[in-house]
Amino acid sequence: MSPIVGVIGGGQLARMMIAPAVSLGLGIRVLAESAGESADLAVTTVGDYRDPAVVLEFAKGVDVVTFDHEHVPQQVLAALVDAGVSVQPGPDALLYAQDKLLMRERLSALGLPVPDWARVADAAQLDEFLAEHNGEAVLKTPRGGYDGKGVRIVRSGAEAADWFAAGDDLLVEELVSFSRELAQLVARRPSGELQLWPVVETVQRDGVCAEVIAPAPDSAGKLADVAADIATTIAETLGVTGVLAVELFQTTDERLLINELAMRPHNTGHWSIDGSTTGQFEQHLRAVLDLPLGATGCRDEWSVMVNILGGPAEGALVDRYDRALAAQPTVKFHGYGKAPRPGRKVGHVTSGGADLEDAVYRARAAAAIFEG
Amino acid sequence: MSPIVGVIGGGQLARMMIAPAVSLGLGIRVLAESAGESADLAVTTVGDYRDPAVVLEFAKGVDVVTFDHEHVPQQVLAALVDAGVSVQPGPDALLYAQDKLLMRERLSALGLPVPDWARVADAAQLDEFLAEHNGEAVLKTPRGGYDGKGVRIVRSGAEAADWFAAGDDLLVEELVSFSRELAQLVARRPSGELQLWPVVETVQRDGVCAEVIAPAPDSAGKLADVAADIATTIAETLGVTGVLAVELFQTTDERLLINELAMRPHNTGHWSIDGSTTGQFEQHLRAVLDLPLGATGCRDEWSVMVNILGGPAEGALVDRYDRALAAQPTVKFHGYGKAPRPGRKVGHVTSGGADLEDAVYRARAAAAIFEG
Repeated sequence: MSPIVGVIGGGQLARMMIAPAVSLGLGIRVLAESAGESADLAVTTVGDYRDPAVVLEFAKGVDVVTFDHEHVPQQVLAALVDAGVSVQPGPDALLYAQDKLLMRERLSALGLPVPDWARVADAAQLDEFLAEHNGEAVLKTPRGGYDGKGVRIVRSGAEAADWFAAGDDLLVEELVSFSRELAQLVARRPSGELQLWPVVETVQRDGVCAEVIAPAPDSAGKLADVAADIATTIAETLGVTGVLAVELFQTTDERLLINELAMRPHNTGHWSIDGSTTGQFEQHLRAVLDLPLGATGCRDEWSVMVNILGGPAEGALVDRYDRALAAQPTVKFHGYGKAPRPGRKVGHVTSGGADLEDAVYRARAAAAIFEG
Repeated sequence: MSPIVGVIGGGQLARMMIAPAVSLGLGIRVLAESAGESADLAVTTVGDYRDPAVVLEFAKGVDVVTFDHEHVPQQVLAALVDAGVSVQPGPDALLYAQDKLLMRERLSALGLPVPDWARVADAAQLDEFLAEHNGEAVLKTPRGGYDGKGVRIVRSGAEAADWFAAGDDLLVEELVSFSRELAQLVARRPSGELQLWPVVETVQRDGVCAEVIAPAPDSAGKLADVAADIATTIAETLGVTGVLAVELFQTTDERLLINELAMRPHNTGHWSIDGSTTGQFEQHLRAVLDLPLGATGCRDEWSVMVNILGGPAEGALVDRYDRALAAQPTVKFHGYGKAPRPGRKVGHVTSGGADLEDAVYRARAAAAIFEG
């Protein structure tokens, strides 16, 4: 019998695990919140991932449980572990992807490079941090944020009254002066093997990943080594299994600072599906099943991934396939089976080649046809 | 709504259409003969493809019907066309992949290069052909043969008494003296666009495809041009849609002769999943939906595909993944979800690189771990 991977969450990350599962001859089952989600083809359970009974029942038929998102509560994860289920990444690692305050505390304790930060319980504490940081800072809710949600720039404690009213401590960070953003992805098996992809440059718009260039231009040597060291240290120290994404700031004074962590395949790794010998979704499946990892070299000198945000107001992405596929026969298209809405991630495109400018042009041109 | 492709037949060719369907955001449904077949994940109907009622019901929910195999009877295909279903490739083209006698007649009439052949109704006619061809020839049942089945070498009419007893005419062909076998794959849309992959070298063992090298060594120039011309002429003249595979003999006197045709993705094109910008399964889906075709360039200087025939007597292919994946981290593995039996195609592996000898070694070494 082939091992079966169970994925909690039915979004596009679960969807993109289907292809490598089928290729590798693995079974895949998905627990989705509702019918008709992105990973529909592999959905075997529709239910609430916060309900231990639902998740335990789902886990009975699978060899390992992994995730499309990081929102599964710790008590549900604990119930799985208590029931003898292999949960990858495990609750003790996942904690640091779920709670940004814990993450900052832990990374600081490890001596890893992070922006200045503080735990703040009220407007007065926030004002104190602002006074020490030129009157401007980034305020984050420790839990539940993604794609720019749960993040805001503040200039006074009073501006955050609504968030403090919820009663939880918040995370405040210096507004980092950065020249660009990078991401270092790594996959790690429970038994220890670890493989890194090259560090990539990411372009964010409105807090959402818009473009990725792999490898990051001018990253060979010291920069790549430091990024790799940071991700390796985090993966090994926190005991991360599966794919770990470390989002980094390259500061204007040439340091790398850790921005966010994600313990699952990540938007900044989508280029690897078409651009690396082993894509992040295949590698994640191999890693969580503790199978040997694949090679992570680049298949092209440059790969460029551009997200499709939005799309035809009425209808589906495929309505634009005639134009887009004809215009860009070398570009790889990935649709997520989601209805387009303004700003919604509904797919991505990847181009590759020896000429970066040309690859950027082709990927942007293809994405623009869908968004236009 | 995304268009939905309906595939008749639940084997590994249908299975390998799932990944690109998911990537492109298309729907895919499979009509399988029985539960638990290779394409299980996408199976929505289990039934007999020879029953027009079953096939018509299946076709109601899909935008196009295409095939995992060529055995759907003409009267079933006609019923689909009469009901207004888009059938790709259509019955008039598929006929020539279903009946080798009709294929030989048609290709000869087109002046395309084929081995000497004859329609023979009895042992006496076969003896006559043998007398003209050094007493040795290849005898084929016009219908239903594949992977060496329905093919035998004969030296006298009496040897074929059992086949003649069935009452149908047989196809006899000269025993071609060839230096190697090649395959030229092409995809064509109903509206006419056509894209060719490079011609490949195929190595057959016991009538079954064992290895493929893409592109075929020493094929640049005249050889590639002739192979491309032959496949283009066949696709356009017969009105083939989707992927067409033309198996060719390169004779010892440096001619190309057409061996077999297949009007579907083909074993000799599996390399393209990992080795071409557009794999044959993605291209087939694009073609049958009349969407613009993708670029067909090679992603590596050389790609080598080796079939996995057989495997662990007890258990599944994945039991060998630990060893195989660890030994060959650069090789791409494809399992078909089939129980291993001696000689059965249960998967394939593909390697790529600038050094052909090394790529051949890595693919063979990986396959050997599964078969050993």
